[in-house]
Amino acid sequence: MSEVAPKIAITGAVDVASNHSVGIVHPQTAIFTAPLALDCGRSLPRYALVYETYGQLNEAGSNAVLICHALSGDHHAAGFNAETERKPGWWDSAIGPGKPIDTSRFFVVCLNNLGGCKGSTGPLSIDPTTDKPYGPDFPIVTVRDWVHAQHRLMQYLGLSRWAAVIGGSLGGMQVLQWSISYPEAIAHAVVIAAAPKLSAQNIAFNEVARQAIITDPEFHGGRYAEAGTLPRRGLMLARMLGHITYLSDDAMRAKFGRELRAGQVNYGFDVEFQVESYLRYQGTSFVDRFDANTYLLMTKALDYFDPAHECGDDLMTALAPAQADFLVVSFTSDWRFAPMRSREIVRALLAAGKRVSYAEIESNHGHDAFLMNIPYYHRVLAGYMANINWALEPQAGVL
Amino acid sequence: MSEVAPKIAITGAVDVASNHSVGIVHPQTAIFTAPLALDCGRSLPRYALVYETYGQLNEAGSNAVLICHALSGDHHAAGFNAETERKPGWWDSAIGPGKPIDTSRFFVVCLNNLGGCKGSTGPLSIDPTTDKPYGPDFPIVTVRDWVHAQHRLMQYLGLSRWAAVIGGSLGGMQVLQWSISYPEAIAHAVVIAAAPKLSAQNIAFNEVARQAIITDPEFHGGRYAEAGTLPRRGLMLARMLGHITYLSDDAMRAKFGRELRAGQVNYGFDVEFQVESYLRYQGTSFVDRFDANTYLLMTKALDYFDPAHECGDDLMTALAPAQADFLVVSFTSDWRFAPMRSREIVRALLAAGKRVSYAEIESNHGHDAFLMNIPYYHRVLAGYMANINWALEPQAGVL
Repeated sequence: MSEVAPKIAITGAVDVASNHSVGIVHPQTAIFTAPLALDCGRSLPRYALVYETYGQLNEAGSNAVLICHALSGDHHAAGFNAETERKPGWWDSAIGPGKPIDTSRFFVVCLNNLGGCKGSTGPLSIDPTTDKPYGPDFPIVTVRDWVHAQHRLMQYLGLSRWAAVIGGSLGGMQVLQWSISYPEAIAHAVVIAAAPKLSAQNIAFNEVARQAIITDPEFHGGRYAEAGTLPRRGLMLARMLGHITYLSDDAMRAKFGRELRAGQVNYGFDVEFQVESYLRYQGTSFVDRFDANTYLLMTKALDYFDPAHECGDDLMTALAPAQADFLVVSFTSDWRFAPMRSREIVRALLAAGKRVSYAEIESNHGHDAFLMNIPYYHRVLAGYMANINWALEPQAGVL
Repeated sequence: MSEVAPKIAITGAVDVASNHSVGIVHPQTAIFTAPLALDCGRSLPRYALVYETYGQLNEAGSNAVLICHALSGDHHAAGFNAETERKPGWWDSAIGPGKPIDTSRFFVVCLNNLGGCKGSTGPLSIDPTTDKPYGPDFPIVTVRDWVHAQHRLMQYLGLSRWAAVIGGSLGGMQVLQWSISYPEAIAHAVVIAAAPKLSAQNIAFNEVARQAIITDPEFHGGRYAEAGTLPRRGLMLARMLGHITYLSDDAMRAKFGRELRAGQVNYGFDVEFQVESYLRYQGTSFVDRFDANTYLLMTKALDYFDPAHECGDDLMTALAPAQADFLVVSFTSDWRFAPMRSREIVRALLAAGKRVSYAEIESNHGHDAFLMNIPYYHRVLAGYMANINWALEPQAGVL
């Protein structure tokens, strides 16, 4: 992609890190006052969505790309929110000028989903009907609810269509749902390291994570804020467990092997192996930046996602309405959403007569690979994105 | 094996369940008053081992078989401890008259390992130096310590040698250790669904289980008995997590799929999918029959097992002293100790010039397969055991 000269100047972005960073970005907030009916039967009377944008919308309004985040992600996908920020957004490796999702060409939008804990309306927000935080009373939201809310954000931004909707893992599920719920509003669907639905094993891991949180005495039925506590232990365990499923056995072997932290066995229950140290760090640091009720909601959205269910468990029928072109990507060592799960999607799309490209990327990084700068993966993504020619796309344009 | 006529009458065994049950068995206790030096540097001044036997020792004392149990196993491997007991011992499918480990031919011994919670000296036992339960002060025991204690039990029983030592999972690690520590005392080594050492991922799962227990506020640093509590939540989570790793993804799909318990989604955090119900049941029922401190010890014994470590990480060198014949068995869908881990053992044994048979059993039951009556698996085990001819073995005999 480096040979593609930027066509549009990047505004509002100071290049603090490198020539390929979107630089400093400021989150924005969209307020929605029309109630949103949810799958669970309840509705949200009003809600806010916090989002970031990178690059510039073209005059035709046809170069917009939506990024959907995964379980613990948020709206801060690229660049830096402050000069002092040490780490860029969670997908900075792929989003920026000259990067696979090239902000010199595309106007990129990423939001924090409903039920999130990074600024969008979620369990930490005030329930207008009680003037207290929602906490555990926040309604259970589904992938379809998220996509509904994202569609409203699209309209709020004055867009009628996305040149592409892109997401990995739970984000990939949102992409699939977009192609089904709003087939005319998505030209290209990029579904990375996803699955058409969770397996029983996936649900089982989620259930252990939920039980870790819910049975923590400091959870207080989800009203830990009112109790002045935090279910630290439960959320830590949930995150430790999550991390095991994000890495492959190979990746763990390469990263930690059986290396001992102190060089020798100490015959006790303190950290001994490097992998224990890594997991405890991942677990404890997560507690300070994530809300337990949100974590529960995200795992439920994962469990419930199953677009084929309403179509007699026939994924082909479920995907029949889609009009988008698809890129499906999987990673060989991903055992959370293994390549065979992506192939289920590809097979159903082909059976439904859709245009699909599929790349199975050789990688030993497990599920986490989707966030990494793996050269072949990024070349595939960059190549696909470079071929998106919005001038040729039908129906593009400002609302 | 059904064509092999029983040579020896089974004594002390009433056939309550079927013609192939060892019937009613009574656990016995061996007291050892000579201190046992442990790998951790401490020693146990005195200890008890509880064990069961099935079948009858022959006059030459050459038909004895030792069964080594896995993480949550115990001495009660076959038959019933009472007429009212509903479930037989944990490996009843394989041990009994006419079964693969044929009690018509073999005198079978199974013990509860040191540190256990089913009668052998462990954290629930009284520390003679304090007159209080050991609790968390029970020393960390290793697979080598267990084998040392098992060797003393062998001598206590008047035996100089086992016709075979047999174990699955952590039990298989004990078999490997037997072949290294006491090469002359073991004629046949049957290593099922094991690994020469844990992978980083295996250790990671153990670490999450340990953290679940240790961070439970009712753990009280392991002194829950004194505090009048039980770390129920932590032990439940540990067991739920364990169960995920015992089953394959395929087995879970076959067993539960995405079946909903109430037939429909309820948009809440109660049990929704059958797999959640199964895991919660497995978790909560375990709490009533297992001790948390013992669980911690067992996971540490797993983590530490690595006989090649002292031999420059060369498993061939570690296994060089072995004199036994080996049968190594793995199961295709076992992802806890996958077939590739068994093949590491087989390759090292072959490189060391040992006699090895290897069977990779097609099964979708995951790690749990080693406990199941899978016809081909049981035929392999029965065939191997039937070929053991103690009359031809050197050095067999009563001590």
